[in-house]
Amino acid sequence: MIFERAKYIEPDFSQEVFKNAPDAKLVAAPKDKAAPEGFHATSIFPEYFKINGEWLLAEESRMDCVAVFEGGKIAVREFRNLKKGDLCVVGRTENCDDGIFVHMDCFEREKGAEETKFSFRQSRSRETAFSYDYEKLVELLRHEKEHGYVVWVLGPACSFDNEARNAFAKLVDNGYVSAMLAGNARATHDLGAGYLGTALGQDVRTQKPHFNGHYNHIDTINKVHLYGSIPEFVEGENIKDGIMQSIVRNNVPFVLNGSIRDDGPLPEVYAHTYEGQDAIRKHVRRATTVIGMATVLHTIATGNMTPMYRVREDGTIRPVYFYIVDTSEFAVNKLGDRGSLAARGIVTNVQDFVCNVAKGLGL
Amino acid sequence: MIFERAKYIEPDFSQEVFKNAPDAKLVAAPKDKAAPEGFHATSIFPEYFKINGEWLLAEESRMDCVAVFEGGKIAVREFRNLKKGDLCVVGRTENCDDGIFVHMDCFEREKGAEETKFSFRQSRSRETAFSYDYEKLVELLRHEKEHGYVVWVLGPACSFDNEARNAFAKLVDNGYVSAMLAGNARATHDLGAGYLGTALGQDVRTQKPHFNGHYNHIDTINKVHLYGSIPEFVEGENIKDGIMQSIVRNNVPFVLNGSIRDDGPLPEVYAHTYEGQDAIRKHVRRATTVIGMATVLHTIATGNMTPMYRVREDGTIRPVYFYIVDTSEFAVNKLGDRGSLAARGIVTNVQDFVCNVAKGLGL
Amino acid sequence: MIFERAKYIEPDFSQEVFKNAPDAKLVAAPKDKAAPEGFHATSIFPEYFKINGEWLLAEESRMDCVAVFEGGKIAVREFRNLKKGDLCVVGRTENCDDGIFVHMDCFEREKGAEETKFSFRQSRSRETAFSYDYEKLVELLRHEKEHGYVVWVLGPACSFDNEARNAFAKLVDNGYVSAMLAGNARATHDLGAGYLGTALGQDVRTQKPHFNGHYNHIDTINKVHLYGSIPEFVEGENIKDGIMQSIVRNNVPFVLNGSIRDDGPLPEVYAHTYEGQDAIRKHVRRATTVIGMATVLHTIATGNMTPMYRVREDGTIRPVYFYIVDTSEFAVNKLGDRGSLAARGIVTNVQDFVCNVAKGLGL
Amino acid sequence: MIFERAKYIEPDFSQEVFKNAPDAKLVAAPKDKAAPEGFHATSIFPEYFKINGEWLLAEESRMDCVAVFEGGKIAVREFRNLKKGDLCVVGRTENCDDGIFVHMDCFEREKGAEETKFSFRQSRSRETAFSYDYEKLVELLRHEKEHGYVVWVLGPACSFDNEARNAFAKLVDNGYVSAMLAGNARATHDLGAGYLGTALGQDVRTQKPHFNGHYNHIDTINKVHLYGSIPEFVEGENIKDGIMQSIVRNNVPFVLNGSIRDDGPLPEVYAHTYEGQDAIRKHVRRATTVIGMATVLHTIATGNMTPMYRVREDGTIRPVYFYIVDTSEFAVNKLGDRGSLAARGIVTNVQDFVCNVAKGLGL
Repeated sequence: MIFERAKYIEPDFSQEVFKNAPDAKLVAAPKDKAAPEGFHATSIFPEYFKINGEWLLAEESRMDCVAVFEGGKIAVREFRNLKKGDLCVVGRTENCDDGIFVHMDCFEREKGAEETKFSFRQSRSRETAFSYDYEKLVELLRHEKEHGYVVWVLGPACSFDNEARNAFAKLVDNGYVSAMLAGNARATHDLGAGYLGTALGQDVRTQKPHFNGHYNHIDTINKVHLYGSIPEFVEGENIKDGIMQSIVRNNVPFVLNGSIRDDGPLPEVYAHTYEGQDAIRKHVRRATTVIGMATVLHTIATGNMTPMYRVREDGTIRPVYFYIVDTSEFAVNKLGDRGSLAARGIVTNVQDFVCNVAKGLGL
Repeated sequence: MIFERAKYIEPDFSQEVFKNAPDAKLVAAPKDKAAPEGFHATSIFPEYFKINGEWLLAEESRMDCVAVFEGGKIAVREFRNLKKGDLCVVGRTENCDDGIFVHMDCFEREKGAEETKFSFRQSRSRETAFSYDYEKLVELLRHEKEHGYVVWVLGPACSFDNEARNAFAKLVDNGYVSAMLAGNARATHDLGAGYLGTALGQDVRTQKPHFNGHYNHIDTINKVHLYGSIPEFVEGENIKDGIMQSIVRNNVPFVLNGSIRDDGPLPEVYAHTYEGQDAIRKHVRRATTVIGMATVLHTIATGNMTPMYRVREDGTIRPVYFYIVDTSEFAVNKLGDRGSLAARGIVTNVQDFVCNVAKGLGL
Repeated sequence: MIFERAKYIEPDFSQEVFKNAPDAKLVAAPKDKAAPEGFHATSIFPEYFKINGEWLLAEESRMDCVAVFEGGKIAVREFRNLKKGDLCVVGRTENCDDGIFVHMDCFEREKGAEETKFSFRQSRSRETAFSYDYEKLVELLRHEKEHGYVVWVLGPACSFDNEARNAFAKLVDNGYVSAMLAGNARATHDLGAGYLGTALGQDVRTQKPHFNGHYNHIDTINKVHLYGSIPEFVEGENIKDGIMQSIVRNNVPFVLNGSIRDDGPLPEVYAHTYEGQDAIRKHVRRATTVIGMATVLHTIATGNMTPMYRVREDGTIRPVYFYIVDTSEFAVNKLGDRGSLAARGIVTNVQDFVCNVAKGLGL
Repeated sequence: MIFERAKYIEPDFSQEVFKNAPDAKLVAAPKDKAAPEGFHATSIFPEYFKINGEWLLAEESRMDCVAVFEGGKIAVREFRNLKKGDLCVVGRTENCDDGIFVHMDCFEREKGAEETKFSFRQSRSRETAFSYDYEKLVELLRHEKEHGYVVWVLGPACSFDNEARNAFAKLVDNGYVSAMLAGNARATHDLGAGYLGTALGQDVRTQKPHFNGHYNHIDTINKVHLYGSIPEFVEGENIKDGIMQSIVRNNVPFVLNGSIRDDGPLPEVYAHTYEGQDAIRKHVRRATTVIGMATVLHTIATGNMTPMYRVREDGTIRPVYFYIVDTSEFAVNKLGDRGSLAARGIVTNVQDFVCNVAKGLGL
């Protein structure tokens, strides 16, 4: 299993630099939702904070948040979730000067291909050779099925093609999907395809426009509301294909987040943006691999809260893998521009991507 | 004023087809958020409904909603806002058969250029000749300043360049902006540029990265929270350039909508997606021109709720103009694929677009 | 065989409109490379010209060329190939008024899916459901292997991934490629991958950069020159994988066209642009299906000379199918903007496309 | 003048590393168009070769070519121009080990903004702040008008809008264009716009389609052929606006290169690809600034032959500036992926770019 080899490099806290470092400075948040001036912002890397002479790892981190000392641990908290009086770490250095150590080069690099592959980000374009990524991703998914937690983030385009819908359903049926994140449109198009055979009014099998097909997505939403929930709809209408029915039947947790361009929305959709964000992070806190497909909004949202490491239950630390799949280089590379350096981009149509991955897994 | 010429064609209700039409069928909504089966969904066009023998226009319409008869009028209501018992129009024909008339070809076409310009949508690409659009848009904005309500929808890229920020501020200062819709990131980058000189860590004037510049956007958000609001921050820090300070100083209404990828968010940001959607529609109900720039999410959200006509206070009806500006053809043409046929796309960088429009207006 | 069903509609020349039409006017070309004023330009459709009372079909047509009467037939000739004195058809009407009949609606439309599929062009985007296209393309290729002539047009990206290279080689090995058109770079990257394992300096299997890998493409070109030709190089270096070795070993004709951005070029590359264009058209004159992948330049070049019909040896007329595959909607839709209305676009990475087609064919 | 400040750092050949280096090895080309095995390939950087104990600079270099010792100097020669017996430098090290010194860090970096600006390439996107680039480019053009040689490379989109055509004509009229490189389509669309008012059949002022407008570009080409040349056509038809008439009237040299997708072509178009490439390089050998707009093919062709330095007549060495303007990040960044690291990308529609530059120069 190649993915086991990327070993975590434990910092050697017996070194002078750590021993001589001062304690991190803690300052109380002056009001709800506001950090003290000079607050330290977290990154995607493992970060250690010296508190009472002891180096504490922020175990569940994400970037651009505040490190709060609480209950003997470091919690990494979004600004909006800060409470007046929270003890926030203050300081903007990274090499122990302020009692803060950001552990950037934290995984052992393998020789050769592995080293190139998972150790640094390179710019990706349609001209990158992707079969190697497919091959490694298939290995990774096999590994994660046993040992990890794979979060899939799906844009609407994942529902427009019937073969792609069914390929993803097979991934779900076979245990490769630990959680699914998406928006109202993605779920609606998929349910509409299962219910009425269309997405955006076009037949998902034959591309034929249906008569009055522009009604289909709102008819679907309306019908789900008449049933009361997606599972009741799937059951009641006996939906037999597609992503959502497979998610429902396999009891895979899902988070549907609302957006200002929603029709409906479906009953399960989060109307409150930041409750929705918290719902995403709940899954990201367990994620070992994240795969974002054909959605800049949801993938970047998820990427923003995904660190590059995961502390397992046994205390060992492993890398988190992050993939972003899109036809546009801009989308694929955007996550990197926002600070999530560890993302690997694949430039293709997500329909082909999903089908290829399913085939690669022998499904 | 060329924009006055696009006259509305009043339907002639004395014609047989209207006189012989049955009344529209009204059925009570079976539960909150759900329409009766067979509901009629509205479009971007003016629609008339025969109620008790009289043809009533839905005065403030939008697509993919339900026509509800209430208080002697037709309200156009989102599914999520339906209440059990609302009297919903049922029927899916458009030519009076069900007492419903969808008035698609409702504006007189001018001869020549005007006809081509505003009467039908054509696919746009980087190879379209856009100086004509600029010229007409400048005329339109001059007209709207006196007679209309111009809603601008701004994506983050509008804040990354200093000249573009200031050009937009001039549009605000000179009365060309009736309302501004945007997201948390757009406002944050702009405020951060005014406060600390950077957007995404890069100087908005010189492109130079600032030391620890990745802190700047969250420092900005945090500082706004310490003040309590954007206006207090603008005042307290004496922000002198950019979009938000101009919006605040000119008392231009703005709506900031949250999204799942937000840091912060700023205090004014709508956390509840559908309250935010309602806040957008509040402005769209008055809009005579909408200009969406560099944001697919917000522009399509706004486009979804924008009809092609506006009933003025004096009862006359005029067209609503809709522009979408983006470097990507896919973005520019996407609104059309979603059913908003009247949008005009301009393929360019929004920085240049804003500067050109300001220069065209002599600012 | 569904592709047989799209029957040609023979014009009924006994109708009055044809009988009453005047003869087409013929005017001699005033000088080499120049047509007489008012010349008729051909289109992608079948066109008939009334000469001496008889309606003659231009049997091998292409758009934007001149119809020349010569040897009792209508030749369709590029401007650059006109000779002083060539008898050119003059007239710009299409409905017999000038003795010219452009037969636009020339193929019977099937009911349902088929009708939608091959009868009119629709705009394509990443959100189109493409599995139907894959399915039909696989059927089409099976059909063409027996009855047609499939011309593949390849951009450089076709050579950057090893699996894609080998998938295309299988298409060649199994008789699905009648001719291959490409440029110097595409052939060089593919030969370099077979010779030294890289394309653009990156390993085509593992994405690893090779030491001094930026030398590899010019080392490859130089080595081919030392051998004297691509076949001698393939033989001499015993190249075992990739596109060109398969093309060479299967004696599939290929045309490599030069461009101003070439290094080298390889010995077989056409240095003279218009001799190269003629070489392409030589294959297009026989083509029944054309598939352009990841190259705007070569695909549009080929598209410009591809009509929508083919006259078989037995005199019957069948449609020509045209596919364009690219990650960019702009590329995919551009051919339509240039007048080739019959092209079907598939928005994806060509690596996935080639692999999918090969898998679909059971290779 | 800020552009004077980027001073060349002359290598100090009295250092041991240079004094101890062996002479570069020279091997005769084994046949025409082929270099000896192990040939050294040139780069965009200044390169010095030790010949008979003396370090010789390749004065007019370009990447991916062969260094040939000839007449006491180092010529940098394309493979296709090699002759059997040419004395080629052999060796693939860059730090004197083989008598070859590649001078990568050859210009002094200024403090602050300038340093960031011209000293290293950064990835560009629609979200970069471009007003700084515009400002500096305007300064640069003012400087170059007196001291440099500015080569403009134009894609077809430069001719589709009337205002953009006229803005470029003003650049020509006012001495900011030393040479223009383009293709057949660009010249044809521009001449057609001046002659018949359209490009791609659409009015360049009003976007209105003209009747039979699809004839206009071939009517234009044909008319030019009837005249015999572009200048005769411009004169004879009294073309009053646009790019080509300005080029012709100001006697600015231009190179039009053919491509396989040409109609016509116009009489001045190079039919032989590599003669056309040589014609481009003739101008590039003098270029101090190159600006490529809306053409990947021509810009990369030109970029491939543009080094990052220029030896002036007085023997001093200055940088060459390279800009690439396109709506697509992929295009803007592609040149970098091919090895031309010094290119600066601007992501926008070229119509806006040209108009902005002209306005910035006060035209």
